[in-house]
Amino acid sequence: MPVTADQQAEIDAQRSHPQPTLRAVSPGMEAHLYRAHDVLDHGFIRVIDYMGDDSSICQAARVSYGKGTKSVSNDEGLIRYLMRHWHSTPFEMCEIKLHVKLPVFVARQWIRHRTANVNEYSARYSILDREFYIPEPSALAAQSTTNNQGRGEVLQGAEAARVLEILKSDSQRSYDHYEEMLSETAADGGAQSGLARELARMNLPANIYTQWYWKVDLHNLFHFLRLRADAHAQMEIRVYAEAICKVVADWVPFAYGAFEDYRMGGATLSGKAIDCVRRMLAGETVTQETSGMSKGEWREFEGVLGD
Amino acid sequence: MPVTADQQAEIDAQRSHPQPTLRAVSPGMEAHLYRAHDVLDHGFIRVIDYMGDDSSICQAARVSYGKGTKSVSNDEGLIRYLMRHWHSTPFEMCEIKLHVKLPVFVARQWIRHRTANVNEYSARYSILDREFYIPEPSALAAQSTTNNQGRGEVLQGAEAARVLEILKSDSQRSYDHYEEMLSETAADGGAQSGLARELARMNLPANIYTQWYWKVDLHNLFHFLRLRADAHAQMEIRVYAEAICKVVADWVPFAYGAFEDYRMGGATLSGKAIDCVRRMLAGETVTQETSGMSKGEWREFEGVLGD
Amino acid sequence: MPVTADQQAEIDAQRSHPQPTLRAVSPGMEAHLYRAHDVLDHGFIRVIDYMGDDSSICQAARVSYGKGTKSVSNDEGLIRYLMRHWHSTPFEMCEIKLHVKLPVFVARQWIRHRTANVNEYSARYSILDREFYIPEPSALAAQSTTNNQGRGEVLQGAEAARVLEILKSDSQRSYDHYEEMLSETAADGGAQSGLARELARMNLPANIYTQWYWKVDLHNLFHFLRLRADAHAQMEIRVYAEAICKVVADWVPFAYGAFEDYRMGGATLSGKAIDCVRRMLAGETVTQETSGMSKGEWREFEGVLGD
Amino acid sequence: MPVTADQQAEIDAQRSHPQPTLRAVSPGMEAHLYRAHDVLDHGFIRVIDYMGDDSSICQAARVSYGKGTKSVSNDEGLIRYLMRHWHSTPFEMCEIKLHVKLPVFVARQWIRHRTANVNEYSARYSILDREFYIPEPSALAAQSTTNNQGRGEVLQGAEAARVLEILKSDSQRSYDHYEEMLSETAADGGAQSGLARELARMNLPANIYTQWYWKVDLHNLFHFLRLRADAHAQMEIRVYAEAICKVVADWVPFAYGAFEDYRMGGATLSGKAIDCVRRMLAGETVTQETSGMSKGEWREFEGVLGD
Repeated sequence: MPVTADQQAEIDAQRSHPQPTLRAVSPGMEAHLYRAHDVLDHGFIRVIDYMGDDSSICQAARVSYGKGTKSVSNDEGLIRYLMRHWHSTPFEMCEIKLHVKLPVFVARQWIRHRTANVNEYSARYSILDREFYIPEPSALAAQSTTNNQGRGEVLQGAEAARVLEILKSDSQRSYDHYEEMLSETAADGGAQSGLARELARMNLPANIYTQWYWKVDLHNLFHFLRLRADAHAQMEIRVYAEAICKVVADWVPFAYGAFEDYRMGGATLSGKAIDCVRRMLAGETVTQETSGMSKGEWREFEGVLGD
Repeated sequence: MPVTADQQAEIDAQRSHPQPTLRAVSPGMEAHLYRAHDVLDHGFIRVIDYMGDDSSICQAARVSYGKGTKSVSNDEGLIRYLMRHWHSTPFEMCEIKLHVKLPVFVARQWIRHRTANVNEYSARYSILDREFYIPEPSALAAQSTTNNQGRGEVLQGAEAARVLEILKSDSQRSYDHYEEMLSETAADGGAQSGLARELARMNLPANIYTQWYWKVDLHNLFHFLRLRADAHAQMEIRVYAEAICKVVADWVPFAYGAFEDYRMGGATLSGKAIDCVRRMLAGETVTQETSGMSKGEWREFEGVLGD
Repeated sequence: MPVTADQQAEIDAQRSHPQPTLRAVSPGMEAHLYRAHDVLDHGFIRVIDYMGDDSSICQAARVSYGKGTKSVSNDEGLIRYLMRHWHSTPFEMCEIKLHVKLPVFVARQWIRHRTANVNEYSARYSILDREFYIPEPSALAAQSTTNNQGRGEVLQGAEAARVLEILKSDSQRSYDHYEEMLSETAADGGAQSGLARELARMNLPANIYTQWYWKVDLHNLFHFLRLRADAHAQMEIRVYAEAICKVVADWVPFAYGAFEDYRMGGATLSGKAIDCVRRMLAGETVTQETSGMSKGEWREFEGVLGD
Repeated sequence: MPVTADQQAEIDAQRSHPQPTLRAVSPGMEAHLYRAHDVLDHGFIRVIDYMGDDSSICQAARVSYGKGTKSVSNDEGLIRYLMRHWHSTPFEMCEIKLHVKLPVFVARQWIRHRTANVNEYSARYSILDREFYIPEPSALAAQSTTNNQGRGEVLQGAEAARVLEILKSDSQRSYDHYEEMLSETAADGGAQSGLARELARMNLPANIYTQWYWKVDLHNLFHFLRLRADAHAQMEIRVYAEAICKVVADWVPFAYGAFEDYRMGGATLSGKAIDCVRRMLAGETVTQETSGMSKGEWREFEGVLGD
């Protein structure tokens, strides 16, 4: 249960008081505000705030005084042009602020995206909750035999059971010990000092949940989504990226459509690869040997053309 | 006249349609939205959008589910604490987007603040307007005799008149020539090709006005304001910073109050300077010679204590 | 003459004292150090310092204790893999510092690349030199009739002559007036105060030369080069990018080779474009109408396949 | 033992081959290159590369063609002036690259400094070593009773012993289970698939060691050191900052001296605090009640003046 009843009451209270504003308003985004979208077993994303909409991108590109456009189709065409030609600054004019609850090992990947603002729940200042990510059986995959940083087949039978047992029992034991070290009551009921929180936390494993406020502009968010909603990303961060994709599609539908077509669904071909396409279109049969590409490049090239 | 009648009509149109939102709303900022605040002879700043208010700073610092506070006085105390202890990330959770019209030589200083998003009016794509910054007579100052990058006395009489004449006539001539080079009609009335805009602009001097959309978070805005609203900043950028200060005071009054007290009104003392204060409070008469400070440091130290 | 005899003597002095170091050394780059490579009529780039070489990229990717590799071919393969898969952080481990002399209108484009360190010659503190960019006749192009931010045919005859005359005479006049305003001797030989440098500079046009130290990591430099060495970049910045490309090719030959193949010589295809390639390879005749692309997209797609 | 015999041999090999360079060389830094400085029980910092020295700061500030200075005392004065007046860009012209081995909970604090380049050892790609931070008994402190994010008295007797026992045994058990899950041999000696590395790592606690290459410019390094070498920083990151301080003092002695005086040894006083100092120097007895400061501010003010 990612959100408690008390927390839900706070969320409901925030949703119950619309106020007038003169700013650009995205109706699709207003429907999301504050609501938690569940991710993994205890995580979520929820939109805390946003700035701008599709028209804000165009307004900035035109440095205009007012709404700065005549027609909606104009706006879509301009947004697609900007995306196609890597004009990134107008997309930076939209901003989103999310509250995210996520396992620490996911947070460690996520934070590598530096062009964002973050406030994380402090384990020096506060005590973390007893909440750990335990994968679904279908997510318990073996090491890939072909990809050094990927997954292969799903574990089966006794091996899967043993892994789940380890993850669950180690999580609980580490948390029991975390509480015991923090406590001002010793095991024998007597008084003890209680270890500093900034030290006790070092006993907690990487599947414990943390949370943060994360604020990022739309250009850098698209960069994050391109890498993290990609099939090669670790599943546990990809599900967060996918949940954010759905929100962004409701927030800035034109920009998201262009992103899907030009970034997520697109591919970058090398000079050698483009040359091969030209030769193939001219009727030549090109093989890896005659392509000038390494085996790895050729396999990836076939993946782009073949699928 | 910084804003034309047409532009004012666009601004009025944007101000006439409040919409409901569930986001944090700053009433002080809503009153500013889209309105142009005049700066210098043809410039302005105007707020295009904003995200967050004082309570958003606290909400992020607490990573809270709802409004996350019991009382307004709590919020002010927390904000002052965060500012005093250089906890910058909660201030990054507020964002402002401005439309600014400013002379090019001011824009060149301004852009050195890198942690911001910018869309500038393109002189490759568009033709610039005939608008130049011509200083007020009271702003026509001599080179400072003590400060290599500052101003001294105001110019008088024939010298002042000659400077104004130069600035005005060179501006007009350069713009006449800009138009002549761009034109597809030659001086003799015949057809000509017209120079590319990206080339013709090189003839325009640094007092021509440009404009941009500028978006920045509150932490980085405070950093900008501390440097540019400072007495040592060039007057022509300082007046922009001062205009922004007034807007920020209406947007996030607690944060702005803390900024005024701890940053704008504060001073950083070196280890040597603190030692001198201690010695002076203990009754010792400290001079530059006995202070351990250089003459320059001592003069600045006296400035802090004396004023 | 971009560099004076005195400056050349300073450069020669710096090149005459090799010292031993334990750091990674790039022989190709040592040959460039401090030397000015002329660009445009008065500009240059020269390498002031650098950090790392091709092997440093691999060493960082492997987080290794020593040189971290067995063979040179290993290194090249790894670098190509990293470039192909957008693993950007190892490229950030190399750094270059350049001294650049360039016209102000070029500097204004250049500075939009924010992830770099810059120290610019200060026109508040110092007096600028009388050096202006005056284009070669072959660079005096008309506005493009098809591209709003590009150039068309080269100007001819009287029009070209008139443009050159304007650029030259306005430059000289503005500089004469700059000196006159700064001077402490009035036109009549009497004393005057002399206008502050921070004000006098506003009379100078955008083709005056400025200079700066510019420091950037290799990943962000590649991003700069991809945009600015591109055929769509304005010629006056492209020649700087091209001069830098030659230096980088000598500094990190493997990384530069991968950059040329995957970035400069590559192309990004949208999902629709990839779908068209597949259909064409399967024997279908695809037209703009049946492609699902707009006319602009289709034209660009033909450009990729056709050349 | 932070470095194995094999690793030491790699380090020695790198130190045995000086090569000539024309770049600025810092003799103090050459002595540090590649050598591991031990930190905590298994960690270290070691310098992998550097760019620039004290004179490079001045050279950039002057945008000079050669060494750009007449005397060493000139350089020191300029550096102190730049530091005192917050001219940060010349300090950005020096760069350092470190290899750091550190516990994950320290890495999580460290990475919050975003203006740096990082390549971390990947637990998706590789298997982490069995190395955990176990505090010295003298570092096992109780939660502070006055500071929500600090430490109080050192734990004693049975409580200290129990905490150490927990940290040691949980670390070993979690690592045993990590290996068991990764293994392709089941507990009964039969074959099993072996859990993907990217999943198995989630069982590891935050005191396990990781390592990374970290590259940062001198300005941002000073910012890091000011916050992390401060008495309020958690001890486990402070010892890394202190080790880096010693290296920087040998690298850029003038800049480090200015940093020590103006930043580490200095203090920022609010407008109210400066007013109080003036009143006290004029002979007035100022108390918290008459100071205009809150109790917290007054306590910090007394700390500055009193110590």
